[in-house]
Amino acid sequence: MRISELARRSGVPVGTVKYYLREGLLPAGEPTAATQAQYGEDHVARLALIRALLGTGGLSISTARAVLAAVDDPALSPHDMIGAAHSALPTMAENERPDLSTAQAHLRRWEWQVHEDSPAVSSLAQGLLALQAAGFDTTDQMLDRYARAAHELGEQDVAEVPMDSPAEAVRYVVIGTLLLEPVLLALRRLAHEDVSARRLST
Amino acid sequence: MRISELARRSGVPVGTVKYYLREGLLPAGEPTAATQAQYGEDHVARLALIRALLGTGGLSISTARAVLAAVDDPALSPHDMIGAAHSALPTMAENERPDLSTAQAHLRRWEWQVHEDSPAVSSLAQGLLALQAAGFDTTDQMLDRYARAAHELGEQDVAEVPMDSPAEAVRYVVIGTLLLEPVLLALRRLAHEDVSARRLST
Repeated sequence: MRISELARRSGVPVGTVKYYLREGLLPAGEPTAATQAQYGEDHVARLALIRALLGTGGLSISTARAVLAAVDDPALSPHDMIGAAHSALPTMAENERPDLSTAQAHLRRWEWQVHEDSPAVSSLAQGLLALQAAGFDTTDQMLDRYARAAHELGEQDVAEVPMDSPAEAVRYVVIGTLLLEPVLLALRRLAHEDVSARRLST
Repeated sequence: MRISELARRSGVPVGTVKYYLREGLLPAGEPTAATQAQYGEDHVARLALIRALLGTGGLSISTARAVLAAVDDPALSPHDMIGAAHSALPTMAENERPDLSTAQAHLRRWEWQVHEDSPAVSSLAQGLLALQAAGFDTTDQMLDRYARAAHELGEQDVAEVPMDSPAEAVRYVVIGTLLLEPVLLALRRLAHEDVSARRLST
């Protein structure tokens, strides 16, 4: 199909498609003339992935390029690929370098196999420090049950990643990680309300 | 103690303490002279709560005032009090009025007792719409396990709320709800990494 048809099929303006081509996010089409090229179904799928990364995923062009490079690298194992997608996600940590020791001690206690430079370790450390600063006592017991809940979700999440297509896998991980987060937080608040309604109302 | 001692004990400048007095967040002390008053341990505790609400809780002065009014209302049941604290929390929803029908259908399916105007219902609706817009299929099965995990956490969270002091209860709910959220999200991402390391690496 021509670029105009690709744009129509994808719901993206032609100018934006050309921008993605220039930025190297979308591979070039098959040239048919000096100023024309043919595009295929791969391009339609790729455009959907690009839109998901930049739009709902909230990634910058350069971060999206890094994620797509990981998708395109045939030498990466599925785990490396998901890791590359994961590390490209925006993180919650505001500070540059929080003290990681408490977070790392918990992770060792749970025997979780995570990279010590993983951005989520910083996020966890930051979160624990904020609780401490607010005078909120987090017991090991409390963190253990949060870790257990998160791990049960994580286990099922990873089992559901579609492994037949690398592009689909990365899309699933990025979108699923980012966009299920607000859902999880809303559900926790609603659960508080439900439990409190059942237990505490008089 | 004098206001200077109260300020020192609380680690808050005298000018800030006076500001909280003027804004009605902190009750006046016992007058001892035309320009002097005595403050007690209640004031120290109250200042810690105010700091937690405004600082880590990220609440505005007027929202904090509403939360504190709930704390101070002896007629509120514990459930109402927690509800007041909860509804004062900042929400994640950006849009004004998302379509709530899908979110409400799920909540009915789970038989959760939540108020249909609860801000977290909007947040849930918003989250589900974003997933749909990104072409991410959320099955009932997937949402059910997220709801189950959230409910298990919520049940234990509510059980741990200290019910002997209203001020402590509200402080616990506000701080615990707000500041455990980034911890939960970081743990979920780390769980993904752990599970993926165990299952997918070759």
